Amino acid sequence: MSDDVKIFLNEEDIPKQWYNIVPDLPNQPPPPLGPDGKPIKPEMLSKVFPMNLIEQEVSQERWIDIPEEILEILYRWRPTPLRRARYLEKYLDTPARIYYKDESFSPPGSHKPNTAVAQAWYNKEFGIKKLTTETGAGQWGSALAFSCKLLGLGCKVYMVRISFDQKPLRKNMMQIWDANCIPSPSNETKVGREVLEKTPDTPGSLGIAIAEAIEEAISDESGETRYSLGSVLNHVLLHQTIIGLEAKKQLKIAGESNPDIVIGCCGGGSNFAGLSFPFLYDKINGQEMTIIPTEPTACPTMTRAPYSYDFGDSAGQTPLLAMYTLGHSFVPPPIHAGGLRYHGMAPLVSQGIKDGLLEPRSLDQVKCYESALLWARTEGYICAPETSHAIACVIDEAKKAKEEGKEKVILFNYSGHGLMDLAGYEKFLSNELVDFSLPEEDLKKSLKSIEGLPKPNNK
Amino acid sequence: MSDDVKIFLNEEDIPKQWYNIVPDLPNQPPPPLGPDGKPIKPEMLSKVFPMNLIEQEVSQERWIDIPEEILEILYRWRPTPLRRARYLEKYLDTPARIYYKDESFSPPGSHKPNTAVAQAWYNKEFGIKKLTTETGAGQWGSALAFSCKLLGLGCKVYMVRISFDQKPLRKNMMQIWDANCIPSPSNETKVGREVLEKTPDTPGSLGIAIAEAIEEAISDESGETRYSLGSVLNHVLLHQTIIGLEAKKQLKIAGESNPDIVIGCCGGGSNFAGLSFPFLYDKINGQEMTIIPTEPTACPTMTRAPYSYDFGDSAGQTPLLAMYTLGHSFVPPPIHAGGLRYHGMAPLVSQGIKDGLLEPRSLDQVKCYESALLWARTEGYICAPETSHAIACVIDEAKKAKEEGKEKVILFNYSGHGLMDLAGYEKFLSNELVDFSLPEEDLKKSLKSIEGLPKPNNK
Repeated sequence: MSDDVKIFLNEEDIPKQWYNIVPDLPNQPPPPLGPDGKPIKPEMLSKVFPMNLIEQEVSQERWIDIPEEILEILYRWRPTPLRRARYLEKYLDTPARIYYKDESFSPPGSHKPNTAVAQAWYNKEFGIKKLTTETGAGQWGSALAFSCKLLGLGCKVYMVRISFDQKPLRKNMMQIWDANCIPSPSNETKVGREVLEKTPDTPGSLGIAIAEAIEEAISDESGETRYSLGSVLNHVLLHQTIIGLEAKKQLKIAGESNPDIVIGCCGGGSNFAGLSFPFLYDKINGQEMTIIPTEPTACPTMTRAPYSYDFGDSAGQTPLLAMYTLGHSFVPPPIHAGGLRYHGMAPLVSQGIKDGLLEPRSLDQVKCYESALLWARTEGYICAPETSHAIACVIDEAKKAKEEGKEKVILFNYSGHGLMDLAGYEKFLSNELVDFSLPEEDLKKSLKSIEGLPKPNNK
Repeated sequence: MSDDVKIFLNEEDIPKQWYNIVPDLPNQPPPPLGPDGKPIKPEMLSKVFPMNLIEQEVSQERWIDIPEEILEILYRWRPTPLRRARYLEKYLDTPARIYYKDESFSPPGSHKPNTAVAQAWYNKEFGIKKLTTETGAGQWGSALAFSCKLLGLGCKVYMVRISFDQKPLRKNMMQIWDANCIPSPSNETKVGREVLEKTPDTPGSLGIAIAEAIEEAISDESGETRYSLGSVLNHVLLHQTIIGLEAKKQLKIAGESNPDIVIGCCGGGSNFAGLSFPFLYDKINGQEMTIIPTEPTACPTMTRAPYSYDFGDSAGQTPLLAMYTLGHSFVPPPIHAGGLRYHGMAPLVSQGIKDGLLEPRSLDQVKCYESALLWARTEGYICAPETSHAIACVIDEAKKAKEEGKEKVILFNYSGHGLMDLAGYEKFLSNELVDFSLPEEDLKKSLKSIEGLPKPNNK
């Protein structure tokens, strides 16, 4: 029984190229638009991102080489193991075989450093000395802090003030990795000062933090500072495909030809896309497969929102992206899965949904915590609240396989551990957690913020 | 450069037997004594531990088979990787090759479940339904909670009250794994009620918590409850030798014949012994090797205390053990390495020190945090405060190798991650941490508690 509990790859078998799904999509996503409503040109982003990453953002190449220096850093924890959830299977008495790609063993504890390392490296290569970013609960900020330290870049993280005050653990992590982590809004930017003047007691928001991080990057007159984003954009998803490429090799070692079902939780889309896009390639090419991005009922971007152009931030400063969106004014309820509280969805994931290739599903957080607890008590590991949104769906599918008597192969992305988020478990165990399914009137209200914005006219 | 950053073993290469060092020791440790001052008989412990573990405690067999059912559980994270600290080596510009056995990837995050799983399994095999234990900071309690849940045993953890109140994370972990974790002193035992009556505001102590856990175990009239200890005893150290046995195989794969230096931090002795005893066998048989157990200057059991009989708990209820001891009334200063705040030392480790086979060293916590920070900023991972006491010594030895121009092979035990202990790092980064080297007068005072106790008269 033990022989396939963990499937490792040798270091020499790590993928040497990332997979870019763009040229393989049946329909191309509409281009990002500038303030004038016209497609933005790459150079318009050059004060925000370095040109080598902008080139990746718009690339039509299917395969992009991973620089050896990036692989050297990833080797610290990659290739990650593919594991089989034998104990959960046994508990559920299901004929399904459940595999999970374990991204929790990176130093910051999630899949995030796959792109953080790559972004830091490309910035360094371009001559950049310092990166700025925002962070909510801190998963992304700590991954970027880690990556910048290893590559010798400075790192400034604007952390949403309420998280900065209430969740000191991730802030401590960032400080251990030598990043300058400050609460947002801050007095260090024009945007921050304006907000503080009007509302000195504001808890802050991701939108404000993004605006501060971008302002600091573009206003550095030395030209040596850039901004870094942890999800949503094409190049971020690209860097995460190493997950799915490894998983493909490992499934073969496990003797499986193909997964029947691929599942990942979806906030901005990066961990889901990282695992699923290499498999989506097979689906586009005729392989039968169900690919499910999951989200909270409290933030139902993929299951209840329209497909529209919208801003990536709540302040309306970014280019307009074509995506499923709850509207950039959307304020998500305080669910514990902080990484899934985003109003939009990666344009590439959105395109896949629009084309019927992906079958999104929403789950409420109480059910997700039940699943996380069952996971901890069978498999032994404690998952992140975000990851529990994948596990809850896996359990549903494994039960369905039992009802149908089918030997399905289910693969999902174990995107991170929950050791920095134990407080949510405590609330669940104390029966203090509630569901936050989005009321229809709140959705309508939030969607007003995209009225008047251009509508994408692709297929 | 990447090819030996991580060295894995296949599951089929996991050791199938534990190594018992007792028959190989040049001098036998003196036997534990009962309240009458005479060597205790195994059956006198039968209300505390199951007989199958008591047999292991007194075994003279060199090799003891590991039951397949225990291996099945250990496979979730074992064999653990042996890693090479290439990045720290590079930073130190040392000719030393530094390897570390990474025990941080178990679900509770340390080496502790190696014995917790084994103890739970043997108790279950013996017909026991529930285990009781004490825990300080919570590392051991969470490992036992995890193990009992996977094996279907009940688990009751008496957690020192001040930790219960101030360190909720580990308590949450235990609850996730379904253990009943309560603050000690409690109203659930006679001992606890007596303490609470006299000192209702007491912060508690490990000694009280041990006394409560033992009382609950031995007073269960059904006979289905036993007590479990996470370090110090022979059978606990035995279960940890899987660490060193794996490391031996992995060093060979890395092309190293033998380590020159083996290092582990030492509280009760289990992680240190687990790594080092299989190598100590070679040293006893003529291999040149320096084996260093490290401890805090705040709790200098091995470097400043006498070798004497003493109680294992501060209440004086356990058998008398022959060991280096600061006296059972010793109250350690509030250093962050909670797992190293124990007044005594495992009798087997003590015997090794007495016979000159082990060369203990003490380190102050500020230096240890400096080392932990350097580790996080080079190797990338955040270590436990206990583990930093090994790393600080590793750095000293690597610098010495540089001065001497010698290509030494240094091996140490990375006993656990620090993700549940980030507060200590924050204090260090804020310059709020101080050294707590034990003042001579405090040592003298504490040693009064062993006056009048029998003196071991072995060599």
